[in-house]
Amino acid sequence: MALVPLIEYDAASPAVRAVYDDIMATRKVPAVNNFWKALANDPANLARVWADVKSVMGAGALDPLVKELLYVAVSVTNNCEYCIHSHAAAARGKGMTPAMFDELLAVVALANATNRLANGYRIDVDAQFRDPVPR
Amino acid sequence: MALVPLIEYDAASPAVRAVYDDIMATRKVPAVNNFWKALANDPANLARVWADVKSVMGAGALDPLVKELLYVAVSVTNNCEYCIHSHAAAARGKGMTPAMFDELLAVVALANATNRLANGYRIDVDAQFRDPVPR
Amino acid sequence: MALVPLIEYDAASPAVRAVYDDIMATRKVPAVNNFWKALANDPANLARVWADVKSVMGAGALDPLVKELLYVAVSVTNNCEYCIHSHAAAARGKGMTPAMFDELLAVVALANATNRLANGYRIDVDAQFRDPVPR
Amino acid sequence: MALVPLIEYDAASPAVRAVYDDIMATRKVPAVNNFWKALANDPANLARVWADVKSVMGAGALDPLVKELLYVAVSVTNNCEYCIHSHAAAARGKGMTPAMFDELLAVVALANATNRLANGYRIDVDAQFRDPVPR
Amino acid sequence: MALVPLIEYDAASPAVRAVYDDIMATRKVPAVNNFWKALANDPANLARVWADVKSVMGAGALDPLVKELLYVAVSVTNNCEYCIHSHAAAARGKGMTPAMFDELLAVVALANATNRLANGYRIDVDAQFRDPVPR
Amino acid sequence: MALVPLIEYDAASPAVRAVYDDIMATRKVPAVNNFWKALANDPANLARVWADVKSVMGAGALDPLVKELLYVAVSVTNNCEYCIHSHAAAARGKGMTPAMFDELLAVVALANATNRLANGYRIDVDAQFRDPVPR
Repeated sequence: MALVPLIEYDAASPAVRAVYDDIMATRKVPAVNNFWKALANDPANLARVWADVKSVMGAGALDPLVKELLYVAVSVTNNCEYCIHSHAAAARGKGMTPAMFDELLAVVALANATNRLANGYRIDVDAQFRDPVPR
Repeated sequence: MALVPLIEYDAASPAVRAVYDDIMATRKVPAVNNFWKALANDPANLARVWADVKSVMGAGALDPLVKELLYVAVSVTNNCEYCIHSHAAAARGKGMTPAMFDELLAVVALANATNRLANGYRIDVDAQFRDPVPR
Repeated sequence: MALVPLIEYDAASPAVRAVYDDIMATRKVPAVNNFWKALANDPANLARVWADVKSVMGAGALDPLVKELLYVAVSVTNNCEYCIHSHAAAARGKGMTPAMFDELLAVVALANATNRLANGYRIDVDAQFRDPVPR
Repeated sequence: MALVPLIEYDAASPAVRAVYDDIMATRKVPAVNNFWKALANDPANLARVWADVKSVMGAGALDPLVKELLYVAVSVTNNCEYCIHSHAAAARGKGMTPAMFDELLAVVALANATNRLANGYRIDVDAQFRDPVPR
Repeated sequence: MALVPLIEYDAASPAVRAVYDDIMATRKVPAVNNFWKALANDPANLARVWADVKSVMGAGALDPLVKELLYVAVSVTNNCEYCIHSHAAAARGKGMTPAMFDELLAVVALANATNRLANGYRIDVDAQFRDPVPR
Repeated sequence: MALVPLIEYDAASPAVRAVYDDIMATRKVPAVNNFWKALANDPANLARVWADVKSVMGAGALDPLVKELLYVAVSVTNNCEYCIHSHAAAARGKGMTPAMFDELLAVVALANATNRLANGYRIDVDAQFRDPVPR
């Protein structure tokens, strides 16, 4: 029950098609998923978000699979149904096994629990954790 | 400004000391951090939470460093000051470089952004993401 | 799959009808939406919430459309499906164009992202932002 | 570092003083706490919020102590420092023992954990939980 | 649309069956609900979460019904559909009346509102709330 | 207690200085605030986030002041202390009066409350809100 129509490739403007083409080429997929078809209602935002995703999720200091796992962990914490499904699929495509997904959820559950214990007891940060971190 | 006194080792009951000893031995640290000293006001919860942490964060399908990164990602999303500091320190102890921390935050920020785009536009999950995942 | 039955006008008590009547008169609509029909199971809460909505969302220092936009921004951040749909409709009724909705979501996404960067890096508030604000 | 000055009784308008007087009389306290002194910058909101608090938190189907515990549970989940401190104090005033506070936090932690397991696995609600609830 | 298959009793391993048996015996129910059937894909997590639930939600300083109410309050704040349905059902089984549920939601709504007022105005915690709490 | 050092202009690389220069020129301010000095530890993210902020927060279908109000509303909902202070200051610079800030917080509080009522009662979206929205 999307609040906006999904823009299919054939009906897209040249600017939107250019983003779709880059998504498909970068990800080696034959079509873009609904997220992009919804964002295409706002071509400037489509281009901006895709540029961010391409830049942030690509190769870097962290493994691409690890980045997808982080994405799933945030999406589960926020309860974004669409994002859980799409990024779990992306993570599986990059090698996430069922056992890895199970462990991810166990960590996310534990972190959400202990976050509330630390906040609820208002525990002061230990001095050694406050030390400046050299760069 | 903790809501509870911190229970130091010397003042702890034998049951609490046993948990402290296991934490120090498992983590190879000379003392437990404030989180555990606060939880020790409720020895049953202290033992339970430590058992969970020991079980979930140990070796498994995911690398221990990856688990710490996931912990930080959740803690940043929830804004748990104590947990960000303590788990960022744990992650550094397991090899997280400054560049990895920067990338982690970039992923967390991006995921928090796109979570709201997907939820705000109420985007329907693509059929291919809904397919049963074989185990 | 509401947890409570929806109370229709014909089945409502006089006290509930009085609130329904005021909602319909104030909003110039021929019927109340499901939110109120669910709240009507608790007439005291129905009256209280409607009084708050009527008081807060009416004319004041902020334009009524701006208030609806703020409502949508909060509802998207919290992922309240019902509230996104109902307040997006209310905002459209007060003049929100598709371009305004798109921009709203872009701002909400950006704010959710930078909130995590500021919290994740634990950035100290600049002195000039802490200055007392004259009233 | 409040964003607004705190309005003390002596400097308050008659309308604000009337609310302060009612708070002090209802709660049998010699002064109002900072929350109300901050809200007093917006007298209409002060009156509205106090009316809501007085109405919701008073005697009803739930014990006043239980209501305070619920308030603390929500505040811990949302990490509202002010609210945790002020409502934990209110709960202690109504009989919350240290053991009750510890258990409350254990429940809040557990619920925050299992909320993410249910959302992360996208578990379908059982048919028997969806049955209409007779009123 | 669960991301994992539900493990029915007949198809479960002995280790999983042992947990199911304990859940059914403890709760006096003829079958386990979907939450456990989903968790059973990760038997270690199933055993751990059930041990936590059994330990935390049982008899203690707080009444079991109060604990279920707290669970619902957290689940509503986080918008966990599964948890709201399942724990509201559990609470009804322990004596929650419709009026109690209505009041619970009114308190949860109020706390979520005032949490934002306190955080938005950045109200400083009163000195008397910061006093150490004797144990 | 930032987790990273703040990069001052004099110590910044040419790439970072170029972003700082653009921020100062665009905003007509003599220095950048701490948010940017922290992000500068990751020059690629600094450039990306600034490009997003410049693009999203500039002139468009929504008034720049309205965008700042939306930013504050999200930041209050998420409890980002840094963002509340910095964007409240930005909003004041664009014309937000104290009365407007008060009303904003009243709307944010109300939306956070009714979000939980709608989610807690699991209220179904009305058919008329689900109608496709023409573009």
